[in-house]
Amino acid sequence: MAVPESVSIAVSTVIFALRSDGDDAGASLRVPLVRRIREPFKGKWALPGGPIGSRESLVEAARRSLLETTRLTPTYLEQLYAFGEADRAPGDRVVSIVYWALVRPDEAERAAEGENVRWFTEEELPTLAFDHNRIVAYALRRLRTKMEYSRIAHAFLGSTFTLAELRQVHEAVLQKQLDPANFRRQIEGSHTVVPTGDVRAGGRNRPPRLYRYDTAALRESDPTTSP
Amino acid sequence: MAVPESVSIAVSTVIFALRSDGDDAGASLRVPLVRRIREPFKGKWALPGGPIGSRESLVEAARRSLLETTRLTPTYLEQLYAFGEADRAPGDRVVSIVYWALVRPDEAERAAEGENVRWFTEEELPTLAFDHNRIVAYALRRLRTKMEYSRIAHAFLGSTFTLAELRQVHEAVLQKQLDPANFRRQIEGSHTVVPTGDVRAGGRNRPPRLYRYDTAALRESDPTTSP
Repeated sequence: MAVPESVSIAVSTVIFALRSDGDDAGASLRVPLVRRIREPFKGKWALPGGPIGSRESLVEAARRSLLETTRLTPTYLEQLYAFGEADRAPGDRVVSIVYWALVRPDEAERAAEGENVRWFTEEELPTLAFDHNRIVAYALRRLRTKMEYSRIAHAFLGSTFTLAELRQVHEAVLQKQLDPANFRRQIEGSHTVVPTGDVRAGGRNRPPRLYRYDTAALRESDPTTSP
Repeated sequence: MAVPESVSIAVSTVIFALRSDGDDAGASLRVPLVRRIREPFKGKWALPGGPIGSRESLVEAARRSLLETTRLTPTYLEQLYAFGEADRAPGDRVVSIVYWALVRPDEAERAAEGENVRWFTEEELPTLAFDHNRIVAYALRRLRTKMEYSRIAHAFLGSTFTLAELRQVHEAVLQKQLDPANFRRQIEGSHTVVPTGDVRAGGRNRPPRLYRYDTAALRESDPTTSP
């Protein structure tokens, strides 16, 4: 194997979306992956991404490669980390700037799916190309940490939501059942959401109340905010 | 100007250290910069850094370039952000992976200083090479945000410290005077530090108590933790 003479750069994105598991079965956190159609790792699943164009910024490259491979145009798209171990691509030296996207259900519905794009749960993940298993594991850890101290659950929901919907996001990301009464107390105690005064329309006797995030209490605590 | 045909990659580091302003004058947050000895921006001050070697990881490149330019070997060295706007380097396409280092006083004392390395306070910063003013401003914002919700002040202190020393870190970073009694109440209420049982030796009648961070209460809340 030749010693690489230059370092090339690519952009990849870890996409997280909540997708329904079917009627009444709840929702799971899923990651769409793209099947590689050339070497190295031909036929393996990988994060969507690719090289950056000479006139593109990093985030523009991430957005374009997402659109081309998955047809997704996520609202929440932030830089996660740059991976640059010397041996992460066979015979080549590639630094990957990794973005992560959190996708609402209505955004996820527009996504491509087919032979070469598939949505995996964490448990279903196969051995991916390059170091992409490690990258997905890191993104999951960051997502779970962030769920505890910031309002990132918001990115998976519309502008208004019921407490049951908010709890479902937490359950899917943290992969554990939460007690509804405890969850309600905890959220109400955090003063991060406020009732809108409306209820979720439907055929039930007691339609659930709708909430929104309290932007008045929003603190600038998100450390992955772009410069 | 030719259209760039390839994208090159560099590593730069923003170093923050608390340095004494002289006898009894307190301490200021300072950033060491390196004078450029070649074009572009020859003669301008810039963040220490350079290209990455073909066998180095990103953090190894950051560590080596810091040692070569400033003789610093900081304990706290984390990836901050990748900057990759298309027009950030004249006539060239360079993506910079930016690290940040927080340096304790004993580490800072070993640093180089001379004609081509100088320590600047925020107010003294001149117009820097490339987009380095923007990078320093972003790093300062992240540092101040992080000071509020994590134990990052620790990185500027030894393993034990007085409450006055901890307050001095907060004052230097946030650039405002803090009321000693309020600060004490706030820190004691946060349960993040515990008394060691020892006092700071000295000639005073009431030598101040020493504290350390309570590692038992340490939560994994640092989102810039490396993978």
